[in-house]
Amino acid sequence: MELGVGGSSPPCCTKKMVKEKKLKPSKELPLGFIDRQEQELLIRDFIISNIKEVMIKYGFQYLETPSFEYTDSIGKFLPDKERPDEGVFSFKDEKKWLSLRYDLTAPLARYVAKNYLELPKPFKRYQLGTVWRNEKPGPGRYREFLQFDADYVGTNNLQADAELCILISEILEKCGLSKSDYTVKISSRKFTEELFDQLKIESAIQKSTTLRALDKIERLGWKEVDKLLGKGRKDKSGDFTKGANLTEKQIKLLEEKIKDTTPKNKDILEIIKIFKTYNFSNFKFDPSVIRGLEYYTGPIFEVNLTFDVKNSKGQVIQFGSIGGGGRYDNLVRNFGNLDFPATGISIGIDRLVYALMQKKKFNIKSNKPVVICVFDKSSIAEYVKLQNQLRSAKISVEIYSGDGNLKTQMKYADKLGSPAVIFYGENEIKLGKVTLKNLRSSQEVSIEIESLVDEIKKII
Amino acid sequence: MELGVGGSSPPCCTKKMVKEKKLKPSKELPLGFIDRQEQELLIRDFIISNIKEVMIKYGFQYLETPSFEYTDSIGKFLPDKERPDEGVFSFKDEKKWLSLRYDLTAPLARYVAKNYLELPKPFKRYQLGTVWRNEKPGPGRYREFLQFDADYVGTNNLQADAELCILISEILEKCGLSKSDYTVKISSRKFTEELFDQLKIESAIQKSTTLRALDKIERLGWKEVDKLLGKGRKDKSGDFTKGANLTEKQIKLLEEKIKDTTPKNKDILEIIKIFKTYNFSNFKFDPSVIRGLEYYTGPIFEVNLTFDVKNSKGQVIQFGSIGGGGRYDNLVRNFGNLDFPATGISIGIDRLVYALMQKKKFNIKSNKPVVICVFDKSSIAEYVKLQNQLRSAKISVEIYSGDGNLKTQMKYADKLGSPAVIFYGENEIKLGKVTLKNLRSSQEVSIEIESLVDEIKKII
Repeated sequence: MELGVGGSSPPCCTKKMVKEKKLKPSKELPLGFIDRQEQELLIRDFIISNIKEVMIKYGFQYLETPSFEYTDSIGKFLPDKERPDEGVFSFKDEKKWLSLRYDLTAPLARYVAKNYLELPKPFKRYQLGTVWRNEKPGPGRYREFLQFDADYVGTNNLQADAELCILISEILEKCGLSKSDYTVKISSRKFTEELFDQLKIESAIQKSTTLRALDKIERLGWKEVDKLLGKGRKDKSGDFTKGANLTEKQIKLLEEKIKDTTPKNKDILEIIKIFKTYNFSNFKFDPSVIRGLEYYTGPIFEVNLTFDVKNSKGQVIQFGSIGGGGRYDNLVRNFGNLDFPATGISIGIDRLVYALMQKKKFNIKSNKPVVICVFDKSSIAEYVKLQNQLRSAKISVEIYSGDGNLKTQMKYADKLGSPAVIFYGENEIKLGKVTLKNLRSSQEVSIEIESLVDEIKKII
Repeated sequence: MELGVGGSSPPCCTKKMVKEKKLKPSKELPLGFIDRQEQELLIRDFIISNIKEVMIKYGFQYLETPSFEYTDSIGKFLPDKERPDEGVFSFKDEKKWLSLRYDLTAPLARYVAKNYLELPKPFKRYQLGTVWRNEKPGPGRYREFLQFDADYVGTNNLQADAELCILISEILEKCGLSKSDYTVKISSRKFTEELFDQLKIESAIQKSTTLRALDKIERLGWKEVDKLLGKGRKDKSGDFTKGANLTEKQIKLLEEKIKDTTPKNKDILEIIKIFKTYNFSNFKFDPSVIRGLEYYTGPIFEVNLTFDVKNSKGQVIQFGSIGGGGRYDNLVRNFGNLDFPATGISIGIDRLVYALMQKKKFNIKSNKPVVICVFDKSSIAEYVKLQNQLRSAKISVEIYSGDGNLKTQMKYADKLGSPAVIFYGENEIKLGKVTLKNLRSSQEVSIEIESLVDEIKKII
């Protein structure tokens, strides 16, 4: 992975580029970026409208921070201590560096630090926005994605943490998932801290290496994770990752404790008590939940789907979580002497869209327009009247706007996926009739103009 | 203005930065970026839902291209020939340069070139998305903003151009503007080409300098524009801009022709004919409309508001257009030998929000939650029951989630702008009653739990 900044001018500014200017630009997208089509976008809109409805009910405020922040405002919150400043897209602006936001949490901390005098405490906000990660792209792994975040800032009350898990469940169920389709896993950084104490792991590097190793249990399995907890591990490509250097005894004890899913930590027990008051039971205590980010200080959550998700080749994939979060009591303090303990949760919207498309048959209303064919441009006024009539009835319709003959127009309607075309030629105009051709059944009917709306509504 | 790329590493990677790491990061945002609050975002959502409704009715397909494109795919479409590669945020990725999109048109051209075999022709698409301009920010001038675009790609038919003007009007009226609040100005690049012929202006540089000068009529007035058409102009800051070097006679004739608003150009006359079939009359032919972008080849449009817009100090400002567009028949051809004449229109959503907030009294439903006060944490189950009851009735409500006493809770509700608080103490729980305090009138009522929903609905 290369850092997102360059040591030279962009090619467009060098002499070489002037020579190359005649070359055709690429039609391709940079790796890790994709075009998204209507069906996916409509499901996304559906999810977003559910999110907004739940957020209003739960009393969260809607906020939007910009794409860019000063790099030093987000840099230290990056997830990987070994590469603290990589992973972001950065640009030099006059004297200071800017970066595209990596998540929505660091910008929230900056926002609270900037506006804390005006904000209610606790401050409950939600945000929907694109985040960017300048990481190595892979199948289904993009460098920009849409994220939803809900956070409580300025409270130690664990009711906040509990309610985050409950609201995320309500969102998922509104989107069409049932209780058996997902689980909210909870654990706590305090629990792992307690473990470190018991195991006498004291060095900060050993602790963070251990956390990073445990975070990979689901992906790699215990056997490989044990290597990462010990001397280190060579991956398939031959790359070697240094381990946490724990003793065999420590590793054995750690594995035992992590596999024990009886909640013992005080915070977890309190959250579970609150869950009961909400009749919320779709959770499990899972000490193997670690969450990548360094800034968590207390309870952590992860939302996992329990149904199979397949890749484009139809193979079941290890889909991972579609969301998660946790308590981060010290993040706002980075900006000054401000006491704003906080907790938050995110959903990866694009990932949820991807999974939902496989789970649920979405009955998304086709937005493909009915096409009014053009026989004679001089009849345009008549076509427009017909079009207005249908649009007033909220029917998606268009007068063919290309330059082709009737055959071309039929091909167009077909390629577009129109439900129907309308023929309204000279004779039909005289008779006050239209011909409606259903493109699915290929049936044609000649009808009075007045009944056109009703006929079309039967088809679409 | 500085290019968005650097000749050195970001400070976070140098030794100096390591020393600075202990410094507090800035709470401020980089210049040209802002945080957006709930009211603005809700009006934006309202505009977007109107746009989507109109787009479906008109038969456009929903598309989303990513934020980044290869720089060479968008570089040559930048507006200012004198600074062809400035104005974008660029970033080196392995060997090639990427840029954040400057508009939604260049990515559409790339998309069509990539997918033309699968697309219907004409291809009608709309997109909503942030665009970035790495330009000098100023009051109300941001470096990122949300844009809406609708385009027809693959047709010479002027009905497409006409319908763009009509659909944008429908969107504005759906958003609450009346016909007297806006005008659609139309002109054509062909009209200016004809003018150049008549005036015997042949050099490409003279032509583009002339267009750039004419584009400034509204902002600078004719007196200053005449200087830009002639030898050049010194602005207030003392900066000198070279002129087009037209003769006095040419300038006089040009001014005369531009001030004559009788439509003469063939395309314009045809578009006006189509407008009539739609009973659309809220337009005017205005040859002073130039539109900045170089790529236009035919009809151009600009949508202007006719009411006063004020800045934050209450002063009426020259607000400029809230949208516009035009025909660009050669843009897709840049990617290969592809014949996709096209036309499109944009709205600057954030600008429209800003203007609408001044024009229209939005009756935006307050999303501030009713607050259930916490007397005793051990009664949480009772509070939750109450909360569930209200949330089931789609009332925005929350149990106070902070750590303060009753006085703190009342201050919180006040700062938040809650419509009401609920007291549900030990005694009230026993009696099956709640106390509802209206925070606007300060009135308190004691009511049965069953009538709580109705009572609250009277208040919010």
